[in-house]
Amino acid sequence: MEPVDTLISARWVLPVEPDGRVLEDHAVAIRNGRIVAVLPSADAHVRYAPQESIQRPSHVLMPGLVNAHTHAAMVLLRGRAENLRLGPWLRDGVWPLERRWVDPEYVRDGTELAIAELVRGGVTCFADMHLWPEVVARTAAEVHMRASVGLVVTEAATGWAATADEYIDRGMRLRDEYRGDPLVSTHFAPHAPYSVSDATLARVRRLADELDLPVALHVHETAWEIEQSEQKFGRRPLARLASLGLASPQLVAIHMTQLEAQDLDTLAGSGASVVHCPESNLKLGAGVCPLPSLLGRGVRVALGTDGAASNNDLDILGEARTAGLLASGISATPGSLIASDLLRMATLEGARTLGLGETTGSLVAGKWADLCCIDLQQPRTWPVNDVHAAVIYGASSSQVTDTWVAGRRLMADRALVYLDEAAVLERAESWRRRFENSRVEAASDD
Amino acid sequence: MEPVDTLISARWVLPVEPDGRVLEDHAVAIRNGRIVAVLPSADAHVRYAPQESIQRPSHVLMPGLVNAHTHAAMVLLRGRAENLRLGPWLRDGVWPLERRWVDPEYVRDGTELAIAELVRGGVTCFADMHLWPEVVARTAAEVHMRASVGLVVTEAATGWAATADEYIDRGMRLRDEYRGDPLVSTHFAPHAPYSVSDATLARVRRLADELDLPVALHVHETAWEIEQSEQKFGRRPLARLASLGLASPQLVAIHMTQLEAQDLDTLAGSGASVVHCPESNLKLGAGVCPLPSLLGRGVRVALGTDGAASNNDLDILGEARTAGLLASGISATPGSLIASDLLRMATLEGARTLGLGETTGSLVAGKWADLCCIDLQQPRTWPVNDVHAAVIYGASSSQVTDTWVAGRRLMADRALVYLDEAAVLERAESWRRRFENSRVEAASDD
Repeated sequence: MEPVDTLISARWVLPVEPDGRVLEDHAVAIRNGRIVAVLPSADAHVRYAPQESIQRPSHVLMPGLVNAHTHAAMVLLRGRAENLRLGPWLRDGVWPLERRWVDPEYVRDGTELAIAELVRGGVTCFADMHLWPEVVARTAAEVHMRASVGLVVTEAATGWAATADEYIDRGMRLRDEYRGDPLVSTHFAPHAPYSVSDATLARVRRLADELDLPVALHVHETAWEIEQSEQKFGRRPLARLASLGLASPQLVAIHMTQLEAQDLDTLAGSGASVVHCPESNLKLGAGVCPLPSLLGRGVRVALGTDGAASNNDLDILGEARTAGLLASGISATPGSLIASDLLRMATLEGARTLGLGETTGSLVAGKWADLCCIDLQQPRTWPVNDVHAAVIYGASSSQVTDTWVAGRRLMADRALVYLDEAAVLERAESWRRRFENSRVEAASDD
Repeated sequence: MEPVDTLISARWVLPVEPDGRVLEDHAVAIRNGRIVAVLPSADAHVRYAPQESIQRPSHVLMPGLVNAHTHAAMVLLRGRAENLRLGPWLRDGVWPLERRWVDPEYVRDGTELAIAELVRGGVTCFADMHLWPEVVARTAAEVHMRASVGLVVTEAATGWAATADEYIDRGMRLRDEYRGDPLVSTHFAPHAPYSVSDATLARVRRLADELDLPVALHVHETAWEIEQSEQKFGRRPLARLASLGLASPQLVAIHMTQLEAQDLDTLAGSGASVVHCPESNLKLGAGVCPLPSLLGRGVRVALGTDGAASNNDLDILGEARTAGLLASGISATPGSLIASDLLRMATLEGARTLGLGETTGSLVAGKWADLCCIDLQQPRTWPVNDVHAAVIYGASSSQVTDTWVAGRRLMADRALVYLDEAAVLERAESWRRRFENSRVEAASDD
């Protein structure tokens, strides 16, 4: 018998690779944080001597979910700027609060709360874009969470950096610090075409080429952004990025609610990826990314929740459902995008988008054991006539029972292992009280 | 001190009437199944001597949700007919299975499973449309659930009735049996304009007038339905219903994804209600009901999940979120429909649509104590910067901790009181095995 650290047996295993496969009564064997094998449970119990054996008789075992775009610490602002379009939401709702409050303590407390929610929802990797990315990286590493931390770049001075060059320099130091880290990777995260200059984008592109890092930015989020770019630069934002050499397989175009034929050509021709954030796009009235058009052209699409201030949760399972409903109902027809496609987008395509497709995102021997387990024996997902449909269209993220990152269990039987959840919630509440008191003070000043 | 049966104190109380109100640290006092008062907790503990006192310090207490359109027993078929448009979904997916399997045992087992899910999701009243409505009524009454049971009418012969007149006659007997029942009410449920004749609709209308019952039917669910009606009857389905005298405050038009100016005029002019089922409509590629247009004309709109075979859950909280996202993103603009509007649609408007607006749907003294409690102190809804947004855009239905119908607690601290959940799930699984075996047999016959 071959020794392994952990053997998890489940009623159903969805490996994502091969695509759409449902394995019944299978097990995943884990050693040194990596998947050793995916095989029938009966065989596994003969072949492996595990230190820890976990039975999940009414559960799906599958790759952990990948949230390919969020602003984790914004969970502290959820509900603070309701009922606004993106423009006023940023200008009047979010930015004034962020200018006043965002500091390393805020980012740490917010990121911890976000990770608690993510792990509870089966997410094993998130791509972040927020000030103080070194705090995001440290917080994720401390609680053994996988993160692709965005090296934020903008022209606007903030508490973190005064100039675009300072953003980039601080980002480069962070990248060097986590180079080769098993959990934390980095990518460039210029904010958006409308907030970053040509010169800065060109510098980001040179560094990204040199260091082989993804470049993720908000692109074509709203019609306003297109108009502004056409007026100022004489072309659409994506065309401007292409002219600066940024349309490449490293490009991660977040949102893309505005798509014309030329944009599709650029994305398809360059091998760029798109991150679809349907709930935030709908809630902010930004538009709908035409998912079936992108997939029809072979463009890789991953899923993101965006920040919780425009969602208002970080639930990738729910985001996949919304993406599927929208694709069936609006952009295309039922059957053009099936539940297993949505699961692949929520896992493997997310990993690939972040440059992590060789190491996570599917249950393949040699990859990190980034997994989650979902109990389907609940009234809302029972009986299971179709496993993929039960996961995508039925399951609530609260049915996730266990989450592993690199073989380490971050949630065991619905209890978080590395986060003191009560303390995390209490710190979030203290931030709410601070916001509230300052609003009351501001009102009494008037 | 005045004796009451139950006193529930919560961090937040959302009474729905007055509209949009948030009451902090309030309590609801209950006697003989009815709400006695909604008042500050501090006052309540001085004024009332409750037999049972329940503290919910991090929870919202609000009216139970109303699922204004479902086919409860269809939960057994969830996942059985994926990736199809409405037409083939019915013809090739659902109807063959229903013809073979639907009998009183199927309806009882399916309805019990549905009620388990509904109660877990905070729903205290559902409007049903399914064969064997007497089984639905009996099942709901046995587990103390509120239901408005549809008296199904169609021209198609089934195991339950052979002719439209037999449907109506059986329905009338059921209506008489439950007349005055505190939990079970009835409404006419002709299937759809395309499956019920003019003569039958006219008879339904005469009886509905006489007995003052709502008439709920699928109307304008798809573009196909409009075309078929124009070809066969020379007019749109809603216009045909109007010509038969059915456009009245009793009309409950389910779906309404196809709306022209004349349809809006008919709905607004007649005082009819619409039940919006966005997830089913999207999943079946049926279209999107233009909610803001309806609300702009003062048409009452309630929310329904439709059956779980096209959803795939019975989660009204999730349905309200989808309705809100769609309204912000597609039909209108952010802010045209705010979270408290969605909560009212998911509660009081549902009750009003079913003719129950005077007795349930809001926290008003004298109404039945139909309530639910949602724990917001969870990572996905914390901190609470906006209570309505936390409930509609953040909370998962699994955060519902308690559900009361007419003052009786059907779920206490997340445990169902009147249903043996393990047995309900096991019976559902045995139906799945029967479907599966018959599919295997059918395949081996080929």
